[in-house]
Amino acid sequence: MRIIEQTSDHSYAFNRYLEPIARVKPGEMIMLYTEDCFKGLVQSENDLPSEVLTGAGYLNPQTGPLYIEGAEPGDTLKIHIHAIEPNRDWAVSCIQKPLGGLTPNKYTPMLNEPLGEKVWIYRFDEHGMLTHDRYLSFPWEPFLGTIATADDLEVISALTPYAQGGNMDVPDVKPGNTVYLPVAVEGAWFFTGDCHAKQGQGELCGVALEISAKVTLEFGLIKNKKIRWPRIESPDELMVVGSARPMEDAARIAYAELIEWMTEYGWDRLDAYQALTQDGKLYCANMVDTFYSMVAKVSKKLAYRE
Amino acid sequence: MRIIEQTSDHSYAFNRYLEPIARVKPGEMIMLYTEDCFKGLVQSENDLPSEVLTGAGYLNPQTGPLYIEGAEPGDTLKIHIHAIEPNRDWAVSCIQKPLGGLTPNKYTPMLNEPLGEKVWIYRFDEHGMLTHDRYLSFPWEPFLGTIATADDLEVISALTPYAQGGNMDVPDVKPGNTVYLPVAVEGAWFFTGDCHAKQGQGELCGVALEISAKVTLEFGLIKNKKIRWPRIESPDELMVVGSARPMEDAARIAYAELIEWMTEYGWDRLDAYQALTQDGKLYCANMVDTFYSMVAKVSKKLAYRE
Amino acid sequence: MRIIEQTSDHSYAFNRYLEPIARVKPGEMIMLYTEDCFKGLVQSENDLPSEVLTGAGYLNPQTGPLYIEGAEPGDTLKIHIHAIEPNRDWAVSCIQKPLGGLTPNKYTPMLNEPLGEKVWIYRFDEHGMLTHDRYLSFPWEPFLGTIATADDLEVISALTPYAQGGNMDVPDVKPGNTVYLPVAVEGAWFFTGDCHAKQGQGELCGVALEISAKVTLEFGLIKNKKIRWPRIESPDELMVVGSARPMEDAARIAYAELIEWMTEYGWDRLDAYQALTQDGKLYCANMVDTFYSMVAKVSKKLAYRE
Amino acid sequence: MRIIEQTSDHSYAFNRYLEPIARVKPGEMIMLYTEDCFKGLVQSENDLPSEVLTGAGYLNPQTGPLYIEGAEPGDTLKIHIHAIEPNRDWAVSCIQKPLGGLTPNKYTPMLNEPLGEKVWIYRFDEHGMLTHDRYLSFPWEPFLGTIATADDLEVISALTPYAQGGNMDVPDVKPGNTVYLPVAVEGAWFFTGDCHAKQGQGELCGVALEISAKVTLEFGLIKNKKIRWPRIESPDELMVVGSARPMEDAARIAYAELIEWMTEYGWDRLDAYQALTQDGKLYCANMVDTFYSMVAKVSKKLAYRE
Repeated sequence: MRIIEQTSDHSYAFNRYLEPIARVKPGEMIMLYTEDCFKGLVQSENDLPSEVLTGAGYLNPQTGPLYIEGAEPGDTLKIHIHAIEPNRDWAVSCIQKPLGGLTPNKYTPMLNEPLGEKVWIYRFDEHGMLTHDRYLSFPWEPFLGTIATADDLEVISALTPYAQGGNMDVPDVKPGNTVYLPVAVEGAWFFTGDCHAKQGQGELCGVALEISAKVTLEFGLIKNKKIRWPRIESPDELMVVGSARPMEDAARIAYAELIEWMTEYGWDRLDAYQALTQDGKLYCANMVDTFYSMVAKVSKKLAYRE
Repeated sequence: MRIIEQTSDHSYAFNRYLEPIARVKPGEMIMLYTEDCFKGLVQSENDLPSEVLTGAGYLNPQTGPLYIEGAEPGDTLKIHIHAIEPNRDWAVSCIQKPLGGLTPNKYTPMLNEPLGEKVWIYRFDEHGMLTHDRYLSFPWEPFLGTIATADDLEVISALTPYAQGGNMDVPDVKPGNTVYLPVAVEGAWFFTGDCHAKQGQGELCGVALEISAKVTLEFGLIKNKKIRWPRIESPDELMVVGSARPMEDAARIAYAELIEWMTEYGWDRLDAYQALTQDGKLYCANMVDTFYSMVAKVSKKLAYRE
Repeated sequence: MRIIEQTSDHSYAFNRYLEPIARVKPGEMIMLYTEDCFKGLVQSENDLPSEVLTGAGYLNPQTGPLYIEGAEPGDTLKIHIHAIEPNRDWAVSCIQKPLGGLTPNKYTPMLNEPLGEKVWIYRFDEHGMLTHDRYLSFPWEPFLGTIATADDLEVISALTPYAQGGNMDVPDVKPGNTVYLPVAVEGAWFFTGDCHAKQGQGELCGVALEISAKVTLEFGLIKNKKIRWPRIESPDELMVVGSARPMEDAARIAYAELIEWMTEYGWDRLDAYQALTQDGKLYCANMVDTFYSMVAKVSKKLAYRE
Repeated sequence: MRIIEQTSDHSYAFNRYLEPIARVKPGEMIMLYTEDCFKGLVQSENDLPSEVLTGAGYLNPQTGPLYIEGAEPGDTLKIHIHAIEPNRDWAVSCIQKPLGGLTPNKYTPMLNEPLGEKVWIYRFDEHGMLTHDRYLSFPWEPFLGTIATADDLEVISALTPYAQGGNMDVPDVKPGNTVYLPVAVEGAWFFTGDCHAKQGQGELCGVALEISAKVTLEFGLIKNKKIRWPRIESPDELMVVGSARPMEDAARIAYAELIEWMTEYGWDRLDAYQALTQDGKLYCANMVDTFYSMVAKVSKKLAYRE
């Protein structure tokens, strides 16, 4: 197991112009440390984000970039998530201005004031539950909020989900699953971070159970295979993540690319459209980020035509 | 068990001005027959909907209205679904013009032609599966596509989901679950129909496995309780259905009303917002109807503060 | 000039099941009285809508229905607006709960409270301006907020704009212009009302300068001509109104139907698409109603290929 | 008049990491040359963009960056557009895959194929009109499709409109008007380009009358004044450009920031909300870019409380 340290500053953007912190070979097992979305600065219920965040107040410090050897534009990067372990015994969530699914925010402004700030701190209890109080207590179900390869043209905020991953906030980006991302630049420029100890579908208030973590990953490459949007494979399912606004566009993207994926298993496009009509799944991963993310799924059993 | 026959024409709208086909008491066990969305007119792969649908080509013939004794505006109608059984040995799906999640349609027109019509017929095989061919074969997982009380002002097409139910196409409207709908007129004017033998989340092409069915229901009334949007209770979960466009508005509605529901169990609104952030579920029921429907869920264990 | 009195109750919905208040021949010049959206109940700044609206609190009482002789499904009804005159010396606007473009509302709910109610009364001053105070003072630029033919299936709230007109809140529905609406039922069942003394594009807070009025109209019929969405003709321009959510769907509808209209003047569809790219106009009529309305325009000079 | 040459490659992104091509003082009159969106590569109706665009096929080559002396984060940059003159005697528009308001595209994918490519070339005729044929002939009404200051964190594609300008495609960014943009980095890092000889509202097919041009500008600075979205001032009107999806969010942003602007002239926010309800203008600038742009306007006469 190779442990990779973040030797340079954490980036708050998916940025191909940064120097890689390491070069990694497909097949190597690596471990990374990730910071929480606040870089650990919100530690108690008195730490209001508007007060304790320093500098420009950016969120989601990223670990990376990693240079993946052999990766070239037009390839697909495969990331198998072996494990996510907590780095500390607490997690944090909050209402932050102006963010959230049920409050005016940057892109849906109103004349009303946004909801006021409020912080919730959760600690692991003796049953391994993350517990704030008797009612707010949740199991450890960690996943990576951000996972991305860099775009060839743009430097993209670590708050944004996009065609190459980013801040998708998809609970299925979790141990045991494999993520597939398009490669746009030589070396792929891989980033990850924003680990969530637990998150519901939609990430309603905009802030999950944020935690810093140790992440064990293994990369693979599919040469000369171009995918258009992030794909995820679990032991039983194939998934695509579409990120766009309005939410129906995210849904269209997710299902359209899932049909594309099914054609790789011999499906006619209209028959795949029919199959997903009767047996697809479609959930909302986030309704709070720069773009909304929707996840379309099909069972492997159906997709593989077994 | 009381069997109620549809003695008048089926309505293609949720319409308080029609004569009820029966008066039903809360607590009575009743059985209704429902037609499929095409009133049985699409029977083979040669029956293109544009050719075989007669008259105005309306869809979703409704069984009802039922007059629910004692129901008054401001009450909530409770419908427990005991059973749904098939009336025949086949189901039908199709691509129909201009309808569907991945084709130009009435509300998202383009200069491109919509996809052409295509019909798929499924038959129950010896394993009880609805089977079109080796690959397109699905289990019997029936639910009611439409379930509604009438609006006090509007007559609403049976293709539309709205605040009192309607064409929500929510797979959780299934046997074993209980649906709660606002009552807007004396007698509630209950309608149901559009049974689906099986449907994926989103109802992608716009037409599920359509079938006619026998439906066993039992009504209840909660007097003087006003809900704003349809609620569903399963043995383990509380759910709200929001129907609107764009899809994020449907999501906002569903989660906002679910928070409202949680306050009935003693939750503070911001704490409920926090709880759903970490443990809510949010799936798309339909991305093809007049309004899109999103279902927000919470486990009873969490909601009930057990 | 034939004056038609509203002999029955005003309807709060576009409803084909009502008895017509009059039968009108194409070519007749008629005058109707319209109530304001509050039926005159909000008369001072102390009259909060939530308190003074009686009964179910419906809005937009309609004048009609008129039976248009000779109108049949598949025809187009032509309505030339000759004049709109005020019935009184004041108009009213307000912030009403929960309505408005910059406040949480029924379809875009948030956890924040909607903005509080506030009423503005405007009176005609000696210059003929509608004046609330030194700064809030506007000229008389009246138009009809609602204008509709009835749907064949649905009864539609007078707050809703749709394919046959309704509550479009389009300032171009004004004296000197001609509106074209699809006819869905024999006799057309024409309704109008909700006169605005003045309104900006978007009707931002949801309530324009509401007034009761005398409206002079003349009907025409285009037999066997099917249009899909409302069209408007001014001395210089052709316009289509699209009503949908999200707003881009309203824009797509408006431009797609305007291209359709241009093909009637010999345009190839792609060339019309090109022409509108360079010289079309596209404004928002309302961003507050059940559906948003967008108006696409082209100059007659360009459209007529003069 | 100082003529500034583009000495380095044109950037296809608004990028603060590039070396400025010049340092400019507030008050200097400067002239820039801008390339057309295709860098001049689409020159005839046989030059299909998918074939002639080289490299990564990026669009909208930018002139810049300019370093504006004295500009610091938290200031507002003022750009007065003195003149736009054509660099050549022709302009080009086309249908390009997959782009356009009435065809499936990257963010609104469908199973249908996008519309096929088609190129229109326009030449100045003897009346100074840009003419393709007898019917497609338009006056010279030039404006800047892109105008931006760089973001402090992101490098943003030249196809994207955002809070600091970018690819807004707003016809009011024209000679005689002044644009105000937030400054996010020291020196502002100003870019412009993508001149349109003429464009309708919405830029329906996605490609206006594209031309290369000479642009005469003069900068100003408002120190320590933070605006949130681009503002435009014409001799008679104040305007704000909101860019977001869905389109109603762009509209909300535009009107909310215009209210903010009006408070600088002494307006109470609710009274400004009222004023814009009765007399605001709201048009769609583009319905085809990464984000849609809406322009909200108010007359200076009203805003200035004269």
